Amino acid sequence: MSTKRNGKSGRRPGNQDTRGEILTAARHAFAAKGFAGASIRGIAADAGVDAALVHHYFDTKEQLFLTTVELPVPIGDVVESLTAHGVEGLGERIITTVLSIWDSELQPSLVAAVRTSLADPTKSRSLSEFLSLEVIGTILGSVDLPAEEASLRTGLVASQLAGVIIGRYVLRLPALAEQSSDSLAAAIAPTLQRYLSGEI
Amino acid sequence: MSTKRNGKSGRRPGNQDTRGEILTAARHAFAAKGFAGASIRGIAADAGVDAALVHHYFDTKEQLFLTTVELPVPIGDVVESLTAHGVEGLGERIITTVLSIWDSELQPSLVAAVRTSLADPTKSRSLSEFLSLEVIGTILGSVDLPAEEASLRTGLVASQLAGVIIGRYVLRLPALAEQSSDSLAAAIAPTLQRYLSGEI
Repeated sequence: MSTKRNGKSGRRPGNQDTRGEILTAARHAFAAKGFAGASIRGIAADAGVDAALVHHYFDTKEQLFLTTVELPVPIGDVVESLTAHGVEGLGERIITTVLSIWDSELQPSLVAAVRTSLADPTKSRSLSEFLSLEVIGTILGSVDLPAEEASLRTGLVASQLAGVIIGRYVLRLPALAEQSSDSLAAAIAPTLQRYLSGEI
Repeated sequence: MSTKRNGKSGRRPGNQDTRGEILTAARHAFAAKGFAGASIRGIAADAGVDAALVHHYFDTKEQLFLTTVELPVPIGDVVESLTAHGVEGLGERIITTVLSIWDSELQPSLVAAVRTSLADPTKSRSLSEFLSLEVIGTILGSVDLPAEEASLRTGLVASQLAGVIIGRYVLRLPALAEQSSDSLAAAIAPTLQRYLSGEI
């Protein structure tokens, strides 16, 4: 079906189908090898294109991964802007940002992405690795702490965020889904702040 | 295939197949009507048996539901024993109990049950209703508060618990999966206690 190409010159640049072939190769690679194990070079080879063309379409491996899981949010950018202002008030900024993204028109596609990722062990392995390496790693880098303590703190932050997202938007527990985002943010911000910089 | 029976006398008492037929009818009923909407009477009628026989095999609707979602933990009993000693120290008792159940040999079947429930909207609807009515309802009953505030507090507790379970056991985020249960419990207990009885 697919013809092997030696795409050194990346000779099919603007083709929609090429982008699709890269995505298909990427999905297989992430499922088989996880986020860390899959490489742009290997994905390019499987798709029969230049690695440069993969970068042309998807910029980074993170962005390529996010496209395969169909999360319609530039997670890297969001995390970067959150952590740019230091640890003070970070807990409140995180929960406010997360709730505003999830309460937006993106909600249905985010819910679908979470359902799919949790249901499929190979997808949740990649998602887990991605969250650990990119999201938690960046937050961890903004908190000046020994690696072991920072890992515990960011794991705790992740646990509270994952729980409010799944309870409020995926399971739609009335006790969470029926709250205003303001009262949830007010209650959860001190938890996140303690996990980031308080006594644990 | 299945013969309609007027099972007024419950005349197939010890039959393994009868139990299976009740379970099949119950799965369909919970998926179609949710936990609150499905009735023992209706499930019995669909299975062609007496309602008394359903109670004989599964005791309560809660127990029947828990069997259909294959959660191998008597959630009702656990919640009851947790809340029997009042609100003081309740946060610590909850997180310690939850982690010890999830760190036990039950873990694989619990993970499978959570994956299935989250992936299938009809199952997560039933699970969500069950958690709201039975688990959160019981905790809510043990905290002496106006209904609206109690709902927010128990929703917050549920969010932290769901997050640590999914992050540690389903997604297996290294930042959560690699922690000792003692350090997680020590960090999370004050969060739960504040959600139950502190300032929010």
